Amino acid sequence: MASPADSETWMTLVVQPNDTNPLGTLHGGRLMYWMDECSAIAATKHSRAVVVTVSVDGVSFKHAIELGSVVTIRARVTRTFRTSMEVFVEVWSEHIPRNLRMKCNEAYYTFVALDEAKRPLPVPDLLPTTAEEQRLYDGALRRRQVRLILAGKMKAEDANELKALFLPENNTAEP
Amino acid sequence: MASPADSETWMTLVVQPNDTNPLGTLHGGRLMYWMDECSAIAATKHSRAVVVTVSVDGVSFKHAIELGSVVTIRARVTRTFRTSMEVFVEVWSEHIPRNLRMKCNEAYYTFVALDEAKRPLPVPDLLPTTAEEQRLYDGALRRRQVRLILAGKMKAEDANELKALFLPENNTAEP
Amino acid sequence: MASPADSETWMTLVVQPNDTNPLGTLHGGRLMYWMDECSAIAATKHSRAVVVTVSVDGVSFKHAIELGSVVTIRARVTRTFRTSMEVFVEVWSEHIPRNLRMKCNEAYYTFVALDEAKRPLPVPDLLPTTAEEQRLYDGALRRRQVRLILAGKMKAEDANELKALFLPENNTAEP
Amino acid sequence: MASPADSETWMTLVVQPNDTNPLGTLHGGRLMYWMDECSAIAATKHSRAVVVTVSVDGVSFKHAIELGSVVTIRARVTRTFRTSMEVFVEVWSEHIPRNLRMKCNEAYYTFVALDEAKRPLPVPDLLPTTAEEQRLYDGALRRRQVRLILAGKMKAEDANELKALFLPENNTAEP
Amino acid sequence: MASPADSETWMTLVVQPNDTNPLGTLHGGRLMYWMDECSAIAATKHSRAVVVTVSVDGVSFKHAIELGSVVTIRARVTRTFRTSMEVFVEVWSEHIPRNLRMKCNEAYYTFVALDEAKRPLPVPDLLPTTAEEQRLYDGALRRRQVRLILAGKMKAEDANELKALFLPENNTAEP
Amino acid sequence: MASPADSETWMTLVVQPNDTNPLGTLHGGRLMYWMDECSAIAATKHSRAVVVTVSVDGVSFKHAIELGSVVTIRARVTRTFRTSMEVFVEVWSEHIPRNLRMKCNEAYYTFVALDEAKRPLPVPDLLPTTAEEQRLYDGALRRRQVRLILAGKMKAEDANELKALFLPENNTAEP
Repeated sequence: MASPADSETWMTLVVQPNDTNPLGTLHGGRLMYWMDECSAIAATKHSRAVVVTVSVDGVSFKHAIELGSVVTIRARVTRTFRTSMEVFVEVWSEHIPRNLRMKCNEAYYTFVALDEAKRPLPVPDLLPTTAEEQRLYDGALRRRQVRLILAGKMKAEDANELKALFLPENNTAEP
Repeated sequence: MASPADSETWMTLVVQPNDTNPLGTLHGGRLMYWMDECSAIAATKHSRAVVVTVSVDGVSFKHAIELGSVVTIRARVTRTFRTSMEVFVEVWSEHIPRNLRMKCNEAYYTFVALDEAKRPLPVPDLLPTTAEEQRLYDGALRRRQVRLILAGKMKAEDANELKALFLPENNTAEP
Repeated sequence: MASPADSETWMTLVVQPNDTNPLGTLHGGRLMYWMDECSAIAATKHSRAVVVTVSVDGVSFKHAIELGSVVTIRARVTRTFRTSMEVFVEVWSEHIPRNLRMKCNEAYYTFVALDEAKRPLPVPDLLPTTAEEQRLYDGALRRRQVRLILAGKMKAEDANELKALFLPENNTAEP
Repeated sequence: MASPADSETWMTLVVQPNDTNPLGTLHGGRLMYWMDECSAIAATKHSRAVVVTVSVDGVSFKHAIELGSVVTIRARVTRTFRTSMEVFVEVWSEHIPRNLRMKCNEAYYTFVALDEAKRPLPVPDLLPTTAEEQRLYDGALRRRQVRLILAGKMKAEDANELKALFLPENNTAEP
Repeated sequence: MASPADSETWMTLVVQPNDTNPLGTLHGGRLMYWMDECSAIAATKHSRAVVVTVSVDGVSFKHAIELGSVVTIRARVTRTFRTSMEVFVEVWSEHIPRNLRMKCNEAYYTFVALDEAKRPLPVPDLLPTTAEEQRLYDGALRRRQVRLILAGKMKAEDANELKALFLPENNTAEP
Repeated sequence: MASPADSETWMTLVVQPNDTNPLGTLHGGRLMYWMDECSAIAATKHSRAVVVTVSVDGVSFKHAIELGSVVTIRARVTRTFRTSMEVFVEVWSEHIPRNLRMKCNEAYYTFVALDEAKRPLPVPDLLPTTAEEQRLYDGALRRRQVRLILAGKMKAEDANELKALFLPENNTAEP
């Protein structure tokens, strides 16, 4: 059974003038385009199938990324649900000559695998092997319940994992 | 005081070959780029300031959009929080000659307004005037608590609006 | 019968560094690309058919548009001729934080509607309903005669509407 | 004194998938972008100054240009008016392996030359030397009058060259 | 029999902000893209067939090219080898208002012609007619031997033309 | 002292319709653009300075890369010469659903490091540690002599390493 490391995908790019916004830093929409591409490759590696994006959550812009920076993107599958896969994407920027490097962005992308007739295709299970992989695996269920509740597709009372976060005995749990 | 309608922004585009993925439909990353641009204009209209994206949530891809489709994007501010604004973006695709039109995507973008020194700038309050605007306004607080909890910046026990969703007497509430 | 308002199409964009010329303002060719796309959507709405550009006239650049400006484009059909449609396109630029807005460009695009075999297709008639729509409707005939004469496809003596402009009793007419 | 040949500029390109519309042929807006660039180089050569586009007329699309075609664009200054220059642009497409070549497009672009403070700059006169150059030179005056009349900046009765086209004794003149 | 002049292809472009690197000069990768396109047209003209790039050598960047410069690219076939053609590409940049012009780049591209089933197709011979064409023609054989030796497809001892460069009696030869 | 592994840079991309040529496979010029970017990052990592491309050699296209393929690019510094660095770039394409992977391209890029005044800057030495790194290190000297001879900057008789390839006792050496 494949682990998250088997789908890990790295992308490295330089921020060109073409990629900037009027403030002269990396355009947020351009970064989301790259993150989509990098995470789609990770999902393709895990499923060995064509995949399409079904949702994106938790995209969080921490720092602006300057023109000329080297952008490194890492994506890996965190959990699978029958025909869908959640992928965690992280982004760092580096200004190599100035020796600066920082975490700039992260997000969760969800993909569905498709067969040749473009119908959803069951995907292989995933086996987390490190503590961080296990933490991401556990969190994926809660994030999925949030998505379903906010989209009106699940009742709050049925979201057991999420509900547990709000019970007195659980409020020390890591989200 | 401005209403959501005052920041409403419409964008209309045609899906060109340049915008497609290898399946021949609109590239998801390209759509997120356009949604970012449309919602940034809405946030700029409300704040009359330069804005930067700080988070994106609930991006939900419902249907693939075909080559040659007309894509219509609508963005409007749903709620403000001191220096930040949540913007709700909706996307429809239309194949005019075949007379087909459907909702394809929606998402919540959050922006921060910046002053000339690029420091966060307080933004004007927003006054919802229709029932739909009020529903989006109320939901914005719950979505914000989800973002803060999932990002580890808020304790679940302090997320009163969200917690209420999980209490027995509230489980009929609309998420 | 459809009016010009039925085909009205709005496009809103931000001038990114990617769209500028070496002077740092919006590239004229890029603007014409956007105007072509916006007016083609208007012509598609009116004809409910695939359309192709056949001519462009009266493109008039009044002001340079700066990096970071919001560009608003409006297109609507002004008159139809059996299988072709004239579309009037207007462009405004807005620097929202500085609260500046001005008319920057306008042009007339002509499209032909095509059937599935890519042969010209008759298009529905158009009914102008406001005074401005009527003025654009009347001018369309004169603009068409200018196009045909300058292209050598019509003799000056047969261009009655245009010729009337040069007769003594008509020289007070609005062009 | 410079002749039109001195400003002649050739551009050769291949229509890539990136340049096509949903019908699979060259996007009309993309072609106008290239024509703008080619004619701006011709105007720069004549004026030895930075130039900006002020108007475009008579863009006439005669044939669709297929994917993979070689596009050849020729631009040359036809006439100058104090600070402005009219440039005639012609476009041919060639499918070399199939040995097909045809005229696909032509247009008139008008540019103004700018000094370093971005103020209009007088441009050198132009000396037509061939019969075709002379014909383009003469026509430039009539095209200019059409532009000014249609833009409401000239009265029809003052457009002597244009008016002459409509007088009985002149109706055999080439437009 | 065709001469190098018959395949000569000129491309003229302006360096837009979109084409620059973070230093504000023309991106080297973008220039190689244009050189590839220009030389592919030259190879297509000579072979009257679809061509694909098989190798590139001797790309030599002599000067950075500034934003706003006019770039002129010239390509022509220098020699043919059964199904392949070597094309010599030269690049000049010009800052017309400042009246500066210089050679900036040159390279050798090799293409193979393909038939409709995408199999290599024999190409017509080439007849050099000027001294410079003859020099390029002769050098093509030595450059080909270098490529084959460095790629491990030819033994150094079999590269007669190249070997001759290293023999005492030949060391005055022009490379 | 840094080894080639310290500068190793990986780039992963998907071939989108936007990146293809009229044959529907990856455009050669686009691939060279990506290779340039990937190798420039490797050279930046080694030199901790801004770098510019000075030459490219041995670009060898072995297989066409299909639409939808995942392209993996690896670049690492092979040898340094005072202010310049040679970088070896390799390209693989993978069609993950069909489980196909192959080497498609390789090339040698040479960069110069620049100080803040854009003058060449001495770069740190490189220490090859594996047999493959040593082989690339040794070959770099011969490739450099070829470049200098073909560019007319070195006499063949002074290219000792290269000359040795053509002497009887050396003709078994790996090029």
